[in-house]
Amino acid sequence: MVERYRSRHVSVLLGLLTVPAALAAQAPIRGFPADALPDRARIEAILRNTPDTVRLRQYLLATTEEPHHASSPGSKAVAEYALARFKEWGLAAEIEEFEALMPIPVTRHVELLAPERYVARLTEPAIPEDKDSGDRGQLPTYNAYSADGDVTGELVYINYGVPEDYEQLARLGVDVRGKIVIAKYGRSWRGIKPKVAAEHGAIACLIYSDPEDDGYYVGDVYPRGPMRPELGAQRGSVMDMPTYPGDPLTPGWGGVKGGRKLDRRDAKTLVTIPVLPISYGDALPLLRALGGPVAPNDDWKGALPITYHVGPGPARVRVHLQFDWQLRPLYNVIAKIPGATYPDQWILQGSHHDAWVNGAQDPTSSAVALMEMARSFAELAKTGWRPQRTLVFALWDGEEWGLLGSTEWGEHHADELREKAVLYLNTDSYGWGWLGTQGSHALRTFAEQVTRDANDPKSGQGALEALAARAFSQAKTVQDSTRIRERGYYIDALGSGSDYTVFLDHLTVASLNMGYGGGQETGIYHSIYDTYDFFVRFLDPGFHYGKAQAGAVGVALARLADAPVLPWSFVDAAKTYGTYVSELDSLAAKKLGPNRTDLTAVRRAVDGLAEAGRAFDAAYERVMALGTRGLAGKRRQLEAINREIYLTERDLAAPEGLPIRSWFRHTIYAPGYYTGYGVKTMPGVREAIELDRPEEARAQAAIVAAGVERMTARVRRATELLGAL
Amino acid sequence: MVERYRSRHVSVLLGLLTVPAALAAQAPIRGFPADALPDRARIEAILRNTPDTVRLRQYLLATTEEPHHASSPGSKAVAEYALARFKEWGLAAEIEEFEALMPIPVTRHVELLAPERYVARLTEPAIPEDKDSGDRGQLPTYNAYSADGDVTGELVYINYGVPEDYEQLARLGVDVRGKIVIAKYGRSWRGIKPKVAAEHGAIACLIYSDPEDDGYYVGDVYPRGPMRPELGAQRGSVMDMPTYPGDPLTPGWGGVKGGRKLDRRDAKTLVTIPVLPISYGDALPLLRALGGPVAPNDDWKGALPITYHVGPGPARVRVHLQFDWQLRPLYNVIAKIPGATYPDQWILQGSHHDAWVNGAQDPTSSAVALMEMARSFAELAKTGWRPQRTLVFALWDGEEWGLLGSTEWGEHHADELREKAVLYLNTDSYGWGWLGTQGSHALRTFAEQVTRDANDPKSGQGALEALAARAFSQAKTVQDSTRIRERGYYIDALGSGSDYTVFLDHLTVASLNMGYGGGQETGIYHSIYDTYDFFVRFLDPGFHYGKAQAGAVGVALARLADAPVLPWSFVDAAKTYGTYVSELDSLAAKKLGPNRTDLTAVRRAVDGLAEAGRAFDAAYERVMALGTRGLAGKRRQLEAINREIYLTERDLAAPEGLPIRSWFRHTIYAPGYYTGYGVKTMPGVREAIELDRPEEARAQAAIVAAGVERMTARVRRATELLGAL
Repeated sequence: MVERYRSRHVSVLLGLLTVPAALAAQAPIRGFPADALPDRARIEAILRNTPDTVRLRQYLLATTEEPHHASSPGSKAVAEYALARFKEWGLAAEIEEFEALMPIPVTRHVELLAPERYVARLTEPAIPEDKDSGDRGQLPTYNAYSADGDVTGELVYINYGVPEDYEQLARLGVDVRGKIVIAKYGRSWRGIKPKVAAEHGAIACLIYSDPEDDGYYVGDVYPRGPMRPELGAQRGSVMDMPTYPGDPLTPGWGGVKGGRKLDRRDAKTLVTIPVLPISYGDALPLLRALGGPVAPNDDWKGALPITYHVGPGPARVRVHLQFDWQLRPLYNVIAKIPGATYPDQWILQGSHHDAWVNGAQDPTSSAVALMEMARSFAELAKTGWRPQRTLVFALWDGEEWGLLGSTEWGEHHADELREKAVLYLNTDSYGWGWLGTQGSHALRTFAEQVTRDANDPKSGQGALEALAARAFSQAKTVQDSTRIRERGYYIDALGSGSDYTVFLDHLTVASLNMGYGGGQETGIYHSIYDTYDFFVRFLDPGFHYGKAQAGAVGVALARLADAPVLPWSFVDAAKTYGTYVSELDSLAAKKLGPNRTDLTAVRRAVDGLAEAGRAFDAAYERVMALGTRGLAGKRRQLEAINREIYLTERDLAAPEGLPIRSWFRHTIYAPGYYTGYGVKTMPGVREAIELDRPEEARAQAAIVAAGVERMTARVRRATELLGAL
Repeated sequence: MVERYRSRHVSVLLGLLTVPAALAAQAPIRGFPADALPDRARIEAILRNTPDTVRLRQYLLATTEEPHHASSPGSKAVAEYALARFKEWGLAAEIEEFEALMPIPVTRHVELLAPERYVARLTEPAIPEDKDSGDRGQLPTYNAYSADGDVTGELVYINYGVPEDYEQLARLGVDVRGKIVIAKYGRSWRGIKPKVAAEHGAIACLIYSDPEDDGYYVGDVYPRGPMRPELGAQRGSVMDMPTYPGDPLTPGWGGVKGGRKLDRRDAKTLVTIPVLPISYGDALPLLRALGGPVAPNDDWKGALPITYHVGPGPARVRVHLQFDWQLRPLYNVIAKIPGATYPDQWILQGSHHDAWVNGAQDPTSSAVALMEMARSFAELAKTGWRPQRTLVFALWDGEEWGLLGSTEWGEHHADELREKAVLYLNTDSYGWGWLGTQGSHALRTFAEQVTRDANDPKSGQGALEALAARAFSQAKTVQDSTRIRERGYYIDALGSGSDYTVFLDHLTVASLNMGYGGGQETGIYHSIYDTYDFFVRFLDPGFHYGKAQAGAVGVALARLADAPVLPWSFVDAAKTYGTYVSELDSLAAKKLGPNRTDLTAVRRAVDGLAEAGRAFDAAYERVMALGTRGLAGKRRQLEAINREIYLTERDLAAPEGLPIRSWFRHTIYAPGYYTGYGVKTMPGVREAIELDRPEEARAQAAIVAAGVERMTARVRRATELLGAL
């Protein structure tokens, strides 16, 4: 599903690299003593070199041959294909089945009734140049978890349909009560649009892809170029995931077959009004028929050949949607390589395998890279290597509908995961571009070193050098370049939009999301045009990025699996949390006025964490000086130390969860309640400030401070244990 | 013709007004002693109240009933209509005829030959709702002074066709040699586009109006709204006016019938390649057929429903244009009210009367306002009033083709004008909006006081208050509002684009351009849709702006005609010239590097002028204290003093004219050689810097300094004479 409503973040890097890329393998690797580096170089070379571009192409062809949306025969076939490969390579693997409420459309009808008549086509035509675009069994264009309904009303154009747009509508004197609204895709996660529209009294919501955002305005449309053609439409879920993701009927527990379920009327994440995505070809007659005020500014305009009007009317529209609401099966594929020394410390890596249609980029590209990485570990095992910790590889089902497979699995195994999960590393789609990482900030240095040692296929540079070159090339002034250098490499925080959500936000397992991309704008997201033919033309013709992706993720996992001391940096974490406190201080002063809330306790907690982190690092350095041999005899003590290290993320859980959405428990990261995928850091405090609730902000600040203090106490324990080695 | 390629400047005003509008008539008026104010109030009330909205409507209906481009029977009829009215009101008036080379199209053919065939329509359709849009005798859409030609070549899209666009083309590896180029209207005066294209080797130039600039992207198109409809096209001259305006065959002398003419081959202002304006309806098939690189950035994109490509080809285009090159007659209408005391000091006010088609806004709106103002002076004369100086009212012909009527008149009467012309006040089109003035900076205070005492019809405020309210309402920050307050009221410098050019730039007569406008964006400029119906719907339904325009200009002229001491402020002039020196210093440092040119002499000259201006003002204040009676006996001395005052603008002439275009002689103002209408201040220096010519910049700086020093010397003489009163 992966966030797409703005150009993907690619984390930007630090100052000049003094170590040439060729020597990078001998650069220090956090978690390992210096004398371990030659052995790491051997292991990592195997993980980087084994992935094979011919095999990646073969897997992708096989798994994108047919539409494979969750619950379809194609999806089951992909799961079974991956299972067979894992087993063929000698890995322990199984399909773990769940079920979830998954609506499929029965009736989709959108019609302009006045001032003239137009029946929306709602169909993406096949393209002769693309062998898969005409496949049978494609899921029609729709938004999963729309309400059923047959409504008629005047049309109102609401720009992107975010809360600010309603402020503008109010200034224009336009009210959406009793109206059908039409919003552009973008600016917010799609599910926010019908949610906010319903809150304002709209009776249905259409969402279209304006050509200014991913169509002909940006570049040539498919097949001439990679942008969205006239009748392309973006499928996607509108489940209220910022409340909770996964099966709407099993919030907080695993959706096993025959298990406990809510009544559908009690599910809190179903949209209350009909909502449907349409193409710009279908939007044009509707928008052209609007009267009322002209779009109040350029932001409200798009690239259709009309003057954009807001309405309401004279356009009158009928929207009739009916869905088949059934529980349907989910097939997660889980493979494991047991840890030789610490089998109860798990390093997890997952990617979803279900697509909206054929989904060559989203998600199959990263699913096949995961497979080829798993095979590389199998090859590595042939050299006698065993991971110190357990590796778990997961191909999730039903991600597109609302992170179904990963959420149900995570909820089902919650107790075990809270104990054993060291880190969850997510991948979801890759493409031409740069290697970016987002996630838990204690892993910043770790991510930097993985990036440093990964390849940039386009240039032959290291991936970190490539990021630096890009950042500096985009600088407009000497001040920009100074800021880029001073900021150094950073990783963005995670919101939602892919399968890390249950791990990071619900179980508070340290998580990362990693992948190449961000270089090529496309307009085929969640359409029938996300195919093999498209992928090899615009995103990874030679599968060199697939190889690099498999190699980089494999190296990351191997380091996490084998490190004598887990590579967490609490100084890194405290530094980033400190920036959030500063942001919130400014926001509070601006939104609430001076002295209306008090973040001193949070600031003090973060300062304490920084100090504890420095003490930890000093102890860590002394322990590393013991060398591989010195550490070999301390496995029992190291097991306990590492447990303290990875459980620090668990300390950041809010005991009661976030206000009005208790499923979300991480005090530092959450998707925004009104932005969807977009992250809100220190969300309890931030959203209270944004909603003008100083009392709640104060209470939430105490909760954040307490979490950071628990983390700090645990870092101190780990430091003592290190000191005692 | 009036500048239209960006939203019209409206000069912005100074701080808070402490004098309520109702008392404004008693506020000081520069040039008059305090005891003259009651009499001025009486005179000005007549000039403001006489203009009649019913009469304005009647004149506009009469003069826009038929197409009246220069040389047409309609144009002659308009001249004769105005002449009859002037005479009817008792004014001495005559038609003064000239002739000029004026091409009219015989053949216009634009055809896309490949990859598919499309013949451009090149015709603006009539609109049933508009009584005049289907009139017979409309001049077809074309660019006057295009070359004849029949050429075929690949098409290249060149954005706005300004010099920077060719730098971008070079980066893309695209060469226009041997190609036909298509440019968007805007960013530069249209005549620059074929000039620069020809310099780069293009064989023909098409210019189209992109809907992003004045079509449906901006707002509803005519008749639903005021923007350009699909097949509307902008006529206009492409004569190389920055070299010299007026008849191409009579540069520098008056184009009288049977007089001396250049051979057409020797005329320097004719475009060397075929050039034609087309509608966006005709541009779409051509642009859609382009391949090659995609538009490199948003600036290169427009609002047509395509991905903009640069080419060249595969689009192949044929452009075939043939013109009937004839000398044709021009009918200037000249009316005079002789000065009672100083008949040889002339205050001139002109507006053109020729249109491209029916031209209700451009120019007939201001032509009829001039007529109604002339009638108001006739009414005022019935009260016994006579102007102290001579008033000359002019309705120019052939402005649209290249300022033909005014230029030939100005050149023909050059010697007399150099002696007698105190000031030329131009008007050219008015509309809904704000009262803006541009021109010679010694008149800044004068313009501010005229604006202070003029009406803002929409609000009932004074026009200066309305400007202030607008400026402050557009401020985004407290710093913005501080800057607006500190800057105070200002007038922009004049480039070219209307009939002040011969007066200001060639004869160096102090000039102003004044008019209401800038409030309503429109897309009917130079099209068949600039009609009476359009004008009364979108620009001045009740003719209240026409009345205000006639009143404000009348008041300005009466003050200039009667002031015992002309209201020049040399402190104002020096202040503005000083800002130009600072701009040029920065520009020189940036373009040429430090110390490559030296503006110290100019700076010193400007400082000297400021000092002389302060001494003048002190002497002026002492003279004003003499009062009306005291001054009444000093008419002979005052005549000499005022002569010194208005001749100061003559001192700013460069004896040899500007480099490569000696017709332009003003050292402070000129239209840019590569921007067209857009002004270049201290043009000799500025353009030398822009073209990387430090030697020339130094030489030109000396010329500017010398001009300012001559002016300063004259200000000192005037001050001495004032002191001797």
